[in-house]
Amino acid sequence: MGMTMSEKILAKHAGLERVEAGQLVTCKLDMVLANDITAPPSIKIFESIGRPVFDNEKIALVPDHFQPAKDIKSAELAKIVRDFAVKHKIVHYFEQGRVGIEHVILPEQGIVAPGMLTIGADSHTCTYGAVNGFATGVGSTDLGAAMATGEAWFKVPQAIKVELTGKKPAGISGKDVILTLIGQIGVDGALYKSLEFAGEGVKSLTMTDRLTISNMAIEAGGKAGIFPYDEITAEYVKDRVKKPFEPVAADDDAVYCQVVKIDLSTLKPVVAFPHLPGNTKRVEDIKEPIAIQQVIIGSCTNGRLEDLQIAAEVFKGHKVADGVRCIVIPGSPAVYKEAMKLGYIDTFIDADCAVSTPTCGPCLGGYMGIMAAGEKCVSTTNRNFRGRMGHVDSEVYLAGPHVAAASAILGRIATAEEVQ
Amino acid sequence: MGMTMSEKILAKHAGLERVEAGQLVTCKLDMVLANDITAPPSIKIFESIGRPVFDNEKIALVPDHFQPAKDIKSAELAKIVRDFAVKHKIVHYFEQGRVGIEHVILPEQGIVAPGMLTIGADSHTCTYGAVNGFATGVGSTDLGAAMATGEAWFKVPQAIKVELTGKKPAGISGKDVILTLIGQIGVDGALYKSLEFAGEGVKSLTMTDRLTISNMAIEAGGKAGIFPYDEITAEYVKDRVKKPFEPVAADDDAVYCQVVKIDLSTLKPVVAFPHLPGNTKRVEDIKEPIAIQQVIIGSCTNGRLEDLQIAAEVFKGHKVADGVRCIVIPGSPAVYKEAMKLGYIDTFIDADCAVSTPTCGPCLGGYMGIMAAGEKCVSTTNRNFRGRMGHVDSEVYLAGPHVAAASAILGRIATAEEVQ
Repeated sequence: MGMTMSEKILAKHAGLERVEAGQLVTCKLDMVLANDITAPPSIKIFESIGRPVFDNEKIALVPDHFQPAKDIKSAELAKIVRDFAVKHKIVHYFEQGRVGIEHVILPEQGIVAPGMLTIGADSHTCTYGAVNGFATGVGSTDLGAAMATGEAWFKVPQAIKVELTGKKPAGISGKDVILTLIGQIGVDGALYKSLEFAGEGVKSLTMTDRLTISNMAIEAGGKAGIFPYDEITAEYVKDRVKKPFEPVAADDDAVYCQVVKIDLSTLKPVVAFPHLPGNTKRVEDIKEPIAIQQVIIGSCTNGRLEDLQIAAEVFKGHKVADGVRCIVIPGSPAVYKEAMKLGYIDTFIDADCAVSTPTCGPCLGGYMGIMAAGEKCVSTTNRNFRGRMGHVDSEVYLAGPHVAAASAILGRIATAEEVQ
Repeated sequence: MGMTMSEKILAKHAGLERVEAGQLVTCKLDMVLANDITAPPSIKIFESIGRPVFDNEKIALVPDHFQPAKDIKSAELAKIVRDFAVKHKIVHYFEQGRVGIEHVILPEQGIVAPGMLTIGADSHTCTYGAVNGFATGVGSTDLGAAMATGEAWFKVPQAIKVELTGKKPAGISGKDVILTLIGQIGVDGALYKSLEFAGEGVKSLTMTDRLTISNMAIEAGGKAGIFPYDEITAEYVKDRVKKPFEPVAADDDAVYCQVVKIDLSTLKPVVAFPHLPGNTKRVEDIKEPIAIQQVIIGSCTNGRLEDLQIAAEVFKGHKVADGVRCIVIPGSPAVYKEAMKLGYIDTFIDADCAVSTPTCGPCLGGYMGIMAAGEKCVSTTNRNFRGRMGHVDSEVYLAGPHVAAASAILGRIATAEEVQ
């Protein structure tokens, strides 16, 4: 009986020939990640263990949530991370100015790679499944222990095979794929399961699409969301990953607990209504216009160059509607710089967008676009839980960059096609 | 007996032939300004009066302090301002994306002009003295009343004549001039007085220098800080100011309470040590190296294109030192865009600076670079009071853009000359 991609990666890192779903295994970790919110409690745990770090090249510390510090408490958090990084000579520590959003910069800089096993004290660590890795979020206690031991235990997850057919049409991005999927299986549809993507549809998905899709595996409850390794992966990691790596492929006779099929060619622009990522609706099915006051374009879900390119193309020659504020947040300094070079930032400023330094900021209600009571936001972020982006009576509508930009221009939830 | 520039502007706006220092006058106002912190209480006062706004073209509302909203309270403040602006059709209301720092955008967009009388519920409203206006900060109560009546009362201030001779050497900016002046007369040296600049040295000061100098008049306790109108002013306002205006000049026999002389050619790069803007020291006189953890380049004092140009020139080919974070904040969307076009933003990102959307942010401890205990910052902002930028045990050293950029590169307070 064959293995899924998840099983293969976990087996290899557990030093076992094979594992199967439900089995408890202890694995050696390739990368251990924390941010400015989760590293401080992890460090406390780490210090209580009293060992040195297991490997200063296998820990990534990315102060991206409340930084540049939004207040004294945030500054103190960043200081704890900084002091720890200096003391333990952490190679992948990112100071302000070099820092981007963790899940943007780790793939971008080749710190995560195919076949790798990564844990991160951040739920969207599953992003790295896009580059054929098994990556999952853990609590700060597990992360603190892992910084000392380089190991973590896992219950090998069952896998859902997501069979993608057809070709993604123009005006559709990875966000429409994952929101459609979550709408279909529900926010607990993949609870403690791994989403494994397969089928010939995969090849019409860019790496940016895949990163967006894997990023939101957790929004269906998924432990991981893994893409197969193909030419697009190879091309992406070629000049980024400096260390050897071993891609994995699912066996033909791997066992899945469920198969979900999505025909990409049938997809339409969608939005997840408040207050769950699974409340997916097609924009064309919205009957009454929904006026909005804010648009966020960015985050670990949609803060990459291609996302900004899509948004810039929609904005070209248009302005943000009166009464709407649109905040664009490049996911990393590299994205920022490239977007500047390609004229996207110019387009955003001409369109009256505010362009922020890379940060998670508004996504988690941190800063840089928090909402007052009664306000509505179309956001390319990943969660629209009640009060997530501010007041408990504000609302977040999740969408991809096409819909986000179009909504900013028209002042209501809209598709890019509606922008004349 | 002649009049000072302050007396002339106040006399004219009081409808009087002449006024003299100490006299109480009621003046018609040309512009009334508030931001996201001060507008909400002003609006409350305004509404208690129960009249319409005196002139919807003479009120400027600039939500620049805590915006894009850093938290729910900030969002609620911005909402109050926004709702008021819409209700009263305020022409000079700036939404996120179009907003810059109030004292950068009002001169930049020609909203303030020579000979004009402006009050603002912000202490650095005195900035507009650079364009030959009388402008001063007031409390929110006065501002709220002014939004209804278009008037305010003033005690005509005595004036200190600041006689500038010589020519500003290379590597010296307006910040060195004003910090040197405040160091000389003290933080209460101009208490309720007007600083009036004069002398042939004025012509070696760019408009950016003048805006920086007038901006900090209040740091010497000054009611205003006014420059004469000359070719540089004419050139600056030419394409910006759309309405008629009347420059003022001091009479030759105007009466001053004091004359202060500064020979610009003798100026050296200076820094104001914690915790007062008057604690001015020459950088060359600093004996023990002062290590820093943060640098801020921006604010209403030094967030203009020329400031970024100076910083970019120092940064060219260099990086921010390890352990230091440098945050660059263009003062307006126009500054941001022009700095991008001229390659400055590229230089900053290459140098590992974080580049923020326009905001007052860290200057007042708002957000975007707040400090933890024990941290030190070299900042181009205007106040270094204890705890101003974060923890009560953090320290702010005020400097111009040359010193700020050099200090970021060397990780200690330094002059641009020390950067090899």
